Amino acid sequence: MKDKEIMIHWMEQGSTSVPNVLLENYKKLSLNEQEMMLLLHIYSYSQKGILFPSFEELSNRMSITASECAGCVKKLLQKQVVEIEQGSQTGYESYSLEPLWNKLVALFESEARGQSVQQAMTEEK
Amino acid sequence: MKDKEIMIHWMEQGSTSVPNVLLENYKKLSLNEQEMMLLLHIYSYSQKGILFPSFEELSNRMSITASECAGCVKKLLQKQVVEIEQGSQTGYESYSLEPLWNKLVALFESEARGQSVQQAMTEEK
Amino acid sequence: MKDKEIMIHWMEQGSTSVPNVLLENYKKLSLNEQEMMLLLHIYSYSQKGILFPSFEELSNRMSITASECAGCVKKLLQKQVVEIEQGSQTGYESYSLEPLWNKLVALFESEARGQSVQQAMTEEK
Amino acid sequence: MKDKEIMIHWMEQGSTSVPNVLLENYKKLSLNEQEMMLLLHIYSYSQKGILFPSFEELSNRMSITASECAGCVKKLLQKQVVEIEQGSQTGYESYSLEPLWNKLVALFESEARGQSVQQAMTEEK
Repeated sequence: MKDKEIMIHWMEQGSTSVPNVLLENYKKLSLNEQEMMLLLHIYSYSQKGILFPSFEELSNRMSITASECAGCVKKLLQKQVVEIEQGSQTGYESYSLEPLWNKLVALFESEARGQSVQQAMTEEK
Repeated sequence: MKDKEIMIHWMEQGSTSVPNVLLENYKKLSLNEQEMMLLLHIYSYSQKGILFPSFEELSNRMSITASECAGCVKKLLQKQVVEIEQGSQTGYESYSLEPLWNKLVALFESEARGQSVQQAMTEEK
Repeated sequence: MKDKEIMIHWMEQGSTSVPNVLLENYKKLSLNEQEMMLLLHIYSYSQKGILFPSFEELSNRMSITASECAGCVKKLLQKQVVEIEQGSQTGYESYSLEPLWNKLVALFESEARGQSVQQAMTEEK
Repeated sequence: MKDKEIMIHWMEQGSTSVPNVLLENYKKLSLNEQEMMLLLHIYSYSQKGILFPSFEELSNRMSITASECAGCVKKLLQKQVVEIEQGSQTGYESYSLEPLWNKLVALFESEARGQSVQQAMTEEK
């Protein structure tokens, strides 16, 4: 593959847009860098129409194993930033980031009210 | 701040575009998730015209301390994916991701030639 | 400039993220393609910290003259999708796309209520 | 739909990343704003895995009719910035923007050589 072909391949691959409000505030949602990258991969797959990537698919792009990936997803579920939605049939599950956006809204609302983030998180539940 | 104002604030903040070739191949460049996120923050700052964010600024968005941040930058320098460019005057340093893109090109070239990534990395030096 | 340098230049230039809700609904806001592209250029400049690009700067990237550009900005002001905000001093004007996002919210609210867009736009005023 | 639901819907819709080199140089490729927006829609559909949107689908998002859309696609084919690739079976056509990226590379190469763009375009053929 010549450089020109590589370049065209890169352009065709496109980019994943990460909302800056998420990039600048994930720390306040008690997410660490590994969790944030996992969210990014889930988001990136969903933009391509792959709504329920397997742990193998996710770990293929990451520096962690499929089993560590499963553990990380479990933590994201516990932290309530990700949900697994059941489709009408088995095998049609999908990840939803709706809880993540909700938490981010709650964060901004609480900051606007001058509350501590801690309080807001507790109230939200 | 009402929900509508939050929403408008979010839209005004915009997004940072992460090239998918980077998102899908950073692992092959021997980068882990923390290092990748740090690169993302450096890239995101540069898109806004801030070319040399301090360790404090970087760690404000991250789950690690400024000193851990410094350690992570040092590793990125050693792995030769980031460079610090000296401006004409002191105080005008800036991060350059040029080595990162170069490594990524080398990766694609080597994969096209059917070489192992290991070989390509060695040759590149 | 060799292909590899071009490629690195391209990656360093980055991308501008256009929210899909805008891309898919500008027509419903009675915007045509020329107006939408002008909005995109204003948005793209703002992401780089240039908040009040001149008609010359805008037309340099467009297939229309600076004077046609001025006419197009005037139309965007009349359609109330763009505002010019006055800074504390003269020479500190900036474009605001806040009215655009407001109109887009109003559009979604009205569609949710099953109203015609026409009604919503009138109410909004 | 309440504002919070709208906001979450917007975040889930994501963004389309437009490479800045394209945004800043389409004029030099003799493309006007309508043609550029059509390219953007084709690109945006392809990012979602829809590789051959119909004229109706394209015009649904645009201020022009499906038949004007067909005319505009024809012009993009003539200007050699878009190609239609035939799949192995009929009904599997897809738009390719490879010629666009090639033209953009040629533009940068020619500018680097200090040539006029006109010359480069002619040579490229």
